[in-house]
Amino acid sequence: MPVAEVARQMLDAYPSELNVDRGLLVRCIEACSDCAESCTQCADDCLGEESVQDLTTCIRLNLDCADICAATGRVVSRQTGYDPAVTSAMLRACVEACGTCADECEIHAAHGMEHCRVCAEECRRCEQACGELVAEIA
Amino acid sequence: MPVAEVARQMLDAYPSELNVDRGLLVRCIEACSDCAESCTQCADDCLGEESVQDLTTCIRLNLDCADICAATGRVVSRQTGYDPAVTSAMLRACVEACGTCADECEIHAAHGMEHCRVCAEECRRCEQACGELVAEIA
Amino acid sequence: MPVAEVARQMLDAYPSELNVDRGLLVRCIEACSDCAESCTQCADDCLGEESVQDLTTCIRLNLDCADICAATGRVVSRQTGYDPAVTSAMLRACVEACGTCADECEIHAAHGMEHCRVCAEECRRCEQACGELVAEIA
Amino acid sequence: MPVAEVARQMLDAYPSELNVDRGLLVRCIEACSDCAESCTQCADDCLGEESVQDLTTCIRLNLDCADICAATGRVVSRQTGYDPAVTSAMLRACVEACGTCADECEIHAAHGMEHCRVCAEECRRCEQACGELVAEIA
Repeated sequence: MPVAEVARQMLDAYPSELNVDRGLLVRCIEACSDCAESCTQCADDCLGEESVQDLTTCIRLNLDCADICAATGRVVSRQTGYDPAVTSAMLRACVEACGTCADECEIHAAHGMEHCRVCAEECRRCEQACGELVAEIA
Repeated sequence: MPVAEVARQMLDAYPSELNVDRGLLVRCIEACSDCAESCTQCADDCLGEESVQDLTTCIRLNLDCADICAATGRVVSRQTGYDPAVTSAMLRACVEACGTCADECEIHAAHGMEHCRVCAEECRRCEQACGELVAEIA
Repeated sequence: MPVAEVARQMLDAYPSELNVDRGLLVRCIEACSDCAESCTQCADDCLGEESVQDLTTCIRLNLDCADICAATGRVVSRQTGYDPAVTSAMLRACVEACGTCADECEIHAAHGMEHCRVCAEECRRCEQACGELVAEIA
Repeated sequence: MPVAEVARQMLDAYPSELNVDRGLLVRCIEACSDCAESCTQCADDCLGEESVQDLTTCIRLNLDCADICAATGRVVSRQTGYDPAVTSAMLRACVEACGTCADECEIHAAHGMEHCRVCAEECRRCEQACGELVAEIA
């Protein structure tokens, strides 16, 4: 089942009112989950390339982005004891990490790295989903 | 996009041979991602219930299961420098965590907790996906 | 061995120049590690209290703070392919999470919750260490 | 403050009886925290080496070991709703990951990689601490 469907069903079962727009939430949770996965795999794909020496900045940004997306997805998934300032700060960090990782991946995508092309797309999607959610909260 | 689709595209872009069956891998990655999400949200949903006092064991198992599924999903996603013994040990820990969390969630699902019902299903799916992958590796 | 000593030895073995002040780095890594641990345990201690119903906001902020400190500690530990904007954004999110969690824990500490008292201290220490590092980077 | 001291104070504040020996718990929590940190930094140090091409298996095992130690440290830190089977399975996965990562790091330590030497020591310490705890639980 897609993560978005899991998130939707679980948010529907939440015992109180949600703190933010359900559609934006689901999109952000899915984007964080996708981006964490694509960055984890892109780091690993880069590590398997003969040209790994040229990909060390990409690997590092992938690792940061995977960690930040995973933490953001968890923070955003929680509704109880919701704090808009913490959530916003984390979303802003995620926008920064996703944008920076996308910039780097796009360089390597232009030189034929297919995993960097897919990963850049996921990073851009997550950058946008987090940006839209933070705009709603602020 | 579903995580399964992201994982499939990234595995297709992996620069060498995959170490295990591609279909089982994708299914396990998706199941770990889904289960980590459902457990994170089930812990939060339980925390929002008036009867939270009766749900503390469920919350704890949800937190463990979310952490273990997240780590397992990462280990399984990596193909470079693959080590079957580490992967298998982690998959076995995930089978144990998912099965135990499902058992607990099913108790509360029987008393009308909808989030526990959904979560138990995701735990069972992940328990099975990890079990099938470990059987292939062993 | 203290985490600070591990971090110091590993930074000394880093094959290039460090990107930021070694002392501030070590202090921030240790503070993130300590705070992630105290928040994980404070959430669990709260869950074990008879008055858990009154502690749900504290548990939630503990869980967020633990996730954010863990991710921040990892980002800050990495020197290769260093990006000051990503690091700063993550440090700012950590300052926000630690400050908010400390505020909440201090309320319960004033009512005799010893684990909240210890946790508030760790949160304040981490808030300060991250704040000092972000000030140096900016 | 050392993580061991944080863990000790938080366990002392736990509102019920601990489920396992306090000394073994504290040692295991500290070892997981140290080993997660040393593996995160060893992966980064390897990534900064000119000979990164020869260190890809080491980086991969470092990343797995960091994720598994972090998850194990969290599972072991929780006392509420304790489940010996889940805890033991996770500790066994951690023993496997630490032992495998230590074996790999020792190869590179023998060729002068100082970060691999330090990391191998932390992995061995964590392998032993987790092994002793699992022996007590079983």
